[in-house]
Amino acid sequence: MHIVAIGGSDAGISAALRAREVDPGAEVTVVVADAYPNFSICGIPYYVSGEVTHWRNLAHRTYADLEAAGMHLRLDTIARKVDVAGHVLHLTGPGGVAEEALPYDQLVVGTGAVPVRPPISGLADLGPADGVHLLHSMDETFAIMRTLEETGTQSAVIVGAGYVGLEMAEGLSARGLGVTQLERLPEVLPTVDPELGALVRAQLEGHGVTVHTGTDVKAIARADAGAPERLRVDAVTAGGEQVSVHAGLVLVVTGVRPETDLAVSAGAEAGARGAIWVDKAMRTGLPDVYAAGDCVITHHRLLGETYLPLGTTAHKQGRVAGENAAGGHRQFAGSLGTQVVKVFDQAAARTGLRDHEARAAGFDPVTVAFQADDHKAYYPGSHKIAMRFTGDRETGRLLGVQLFGHKHAEIAKRIDIAATAIHHGMTIDEVSDLDLSYTPPLGSPWDAVQMGAQAWVRHLGAQ
Amino acid sequence: MHIVAIGGSDAGISAALRAREVDPGAEVTVVVADAYPNFSICGIPYYVSGEVTHWRNLAHRTYADLEAAGMHLRLDTIARKVDVAGHVLHLTGPGGVAEEALPYDQLVVGTGAVPVRPPISGLADLGPADGVHLLHSMDETFAIMRTLEETGTQSAVIVGAGYVGLEMAEGLSARGLGVTQLERLPEVLPTVDPELGALVRAQLEGHGVTVHTGTDVKAIARADAGAPERLRVDAVTAGGEQVSVHAGLVLVVTGVRPETDLAVSAGAEAGARGAIWVDKAMRTGLPDVYAAGDCVITHHRLLGETYLPLGTTAHKQGRVAGENAAGGHRQFAGSLGTQVVKVFDQAAARTGLRDHEARAAGFDPVTVAFQADDHKAYYPGSHKIAMRFTGDRETGRLLGVQLFGHKHAEIAKRIDIAATAIHHGMTIDEVSDLDLSYTPPLGSPWDAVQMGAQAWVRHLGAQ
Repeated sequence: MHIVAIGGSDAGISAALRAREVDPGAEVTVVVADAYPNFSICGIPYYVSGEVTHWRNLAHRTYADLEAAGMHLRLDTIARKVDVAGHVLHLTGPGGVAEEALPYDQLVVGTGAVPVRPPISGLADLGPADGVHLLHSMDETFAIMRTLEETGTQSAVIVGAGYVGLEMAEGLSARGLGVTQLERLPEVLPTVDPELGALVRAQLEGHGVTVHTGTDVKAIARADAGAPERLRVDAVTAGGEQVSVHAGLVLVVTGVRPETDLAVSAGAEAGARGAIWVDKAMRTGLPDVYAAGDCVITHHRLLGETYLPLGTTAHKQGRVAGENAAGGHRQFAGSLGTQVVKVFDQAAARTGLRDHEARAAGFDPVTVAFQADDHKAYYPGSHKIAMRFTGDRETGRLLGVQLFGHKHAEIAKRIDIAATAIHHGMTIDEVSDLDLSYTPPLGSPWDAVQMGAQAWVRHLGAQ
Repeated sequence: MHIVAIGGSDAGISAALRAREVDPGAEVTVVVADAYPNFSICGIPYYVSGEVTHWRNLAHRTYADLEAAGMHLRLDTIARKVDVAGHVLHLTGPGGVAEEALPYDQLVVGTGAVPVRPPISGLADLGPADGVHLLHSMDETFAIMRTLEETGTQSAVIVGAGYVGLEMAEGLSARGLGVTQLERLPEVLPTVDPELGALVRAQLEGHGVTVHTGTDVKAIARADAGAPERLRVDAVTAGGEQVSVHAGLVLVVTGVRPETDLAVSAGAEAGARGAIWVDKAMRTGLPDVYAAGDCVITHHRLLGETYLPLGTTAHKQGRVAGENAAGGHRQFAGSLGTQVVKVFDQAAARTGLRDHEARAAGFDPVTVAFQADDHKAYYPGSHKIAMRFTGDRETGRLLGVQLFGHKHAEIAKRIDIAATAIHHGMTIDEVSDLDLSYTPPLGSPWDAVQMGAQAWVRHLGAQ
């Protein structure tokens, strides 16, 4: 039995690890496009910031760890074509030289995603050598570090204020750069409601980041001679005002799209947002071809089939694919889109659906805001948690929760309590039944999430 | 409709608040034995430590808050007797003078618990004026503070190393006292496995607390003239060795027993550990008499009827009793015994059953220990979490989790993820299906609790 996984990031490596775990006799090969298998791309901002002191520390596991787990790694190797009928993967080896036909019994495609290139004038013509960067891989990380170190620039423009944009704003600020963040949508972190996005924005601004929201970037160009920095970014606000910013580094982080060419050209169907369609067993429909991670559609417990690329999901999908490729019968249980991001001293998190998402999915949602202390206010160091609960009016079912608060306010694991509750289809009222822990320095007799749930129930009763 | 709640702590106040919430027209009276309604007795150690700067801050709500919620408070008033047939509660007012007959339609008994007095020679003869204290009420708190302030003693003996004992060891240490902790059982914090208790003990000792476990206190006595402090505590270790400690303050905190006299003399049945029997609607069986909190049995989701007094449970039971007294139909969903305690810089938590508890309850438990980082180790400030997972061998059902780690490692809310999983009867394998949040500074792609769950599954597979 030879299992081949394509992709050295979360999905491919998880599949390979799991395949070896359930079938220690299986031969497992992982085809990795670059030299950095199992690196934590979520950790890149903390390498740029200097908090991670060596890029090698970003590896979840070392090359030796991975080989010790029983997989063969083929680095700097590109998967060119899948011969589905022949059960052969066509590869190009390091340097783009040697062609090879690698037979497989079971294949797991984990080709991931690539950064979106928004239609900004000049973006196609400028690159890392000019100080204009995308960010999704270790090579792109090294290119950013070269720009920072070789030019010594003290100013950066970040186009996009999603998770990566925010983390990079913090990371570059930590290095001492002046950062300007430009976001097309009306508020930063558009994956949460603008009421919480505004709190995130206040964190950014409180730490010296200049934020322009509702601002569409039109052009990136080399600055005129005599300009303070070598790049100029031109944008237009929603009100029609022109914004021009000079910077030595421009980072464009406006999202990703699934990398599907290999699978689709082999005959795989595309689904939501053009991602590779898979069933819950991570089967593509092509015989003996699985796919997982940022390249595939996401089965969502409340939305059905969607596209929602996240590292956590890629790990889970990869593990399912690896188990099944090795003869197992596991199903991906479905995502809730649970996410958390730290922005300077605060954290913002969400799980499930926001109001408009729930409405689009056919629910009749009600969203209620509430604030509660992370622990008893009489004990020093308590912090307010801003919460938004979304539930279905008729059934009372908990559909989504959003939280914002201090990084030590256990925001991340509080959103996980909500995620676990939504996983089980609880009503918001039933959240009060959960036996959650309490000690004054770390909580309240009713936890903050239970107080928020009770506020939602009261609100509905008062309507 | 006149609803009377007896007890000014968690259960009584929760019942009164909820009764007013569901029936704003109800007249609600709360009979409070002392002058401190709705005080957080869990917060007392932090007032003793000095972290809570005024005892009034320990009130969950002020007198004015409670009256504004629509309840009448009868302070310093003792409930003497319930005339069940006549629907009358006989009271003695402030100073033990005025007798009164208070008619009610619905009664909620929340008489709470009282400290156990272990059979220690001398304990019955010595009291607060001698520096010997129990601790369960505000009056007892004030007595301790008087001993500390008037004698200026710099040494304390704490008999018992449960939650309160540990918190008081920290609180008295924070005031600069030298603390000796004596525990009869083989390890401190006997509500968790000794492997984690040993880690708690290391915290205590690392902060200067002298700990003697397996040590039975035999006598407390006034010290001889010329002794360094005015009290002497004599104990015997499991090995038969004599331990004598001098101290200016002795605190005996070895647990509580339910205060049931009022309800039992009115005809209520007793259940587990002599606590008042109630059904899940918190009905005692006596017409129109509910009971809740530390005085009643606990319906446990895995154990059935037991006795497990906790503030969180008292809040929930009180809320159910209040809702039903006001005409509702709510049921207490059951406890899992979820608890957390902070000990200096660390926290220990548990939910569900430990191995021996699960075995006694008829399961075939397997317990597996595991360690994982609270967040990606490449990001500064990560901490190891020591975990113990208990599951049923045959069904794979998650029965219990115990955690120990740094106070900023989100131990409290991680145990709550486990509590929510157990609430829903998940298998340990299914814990990996939960969509939990991740960002490198606050978690891992598989959360620590999922890594622990996977370790359990691997262990079982390897057997």
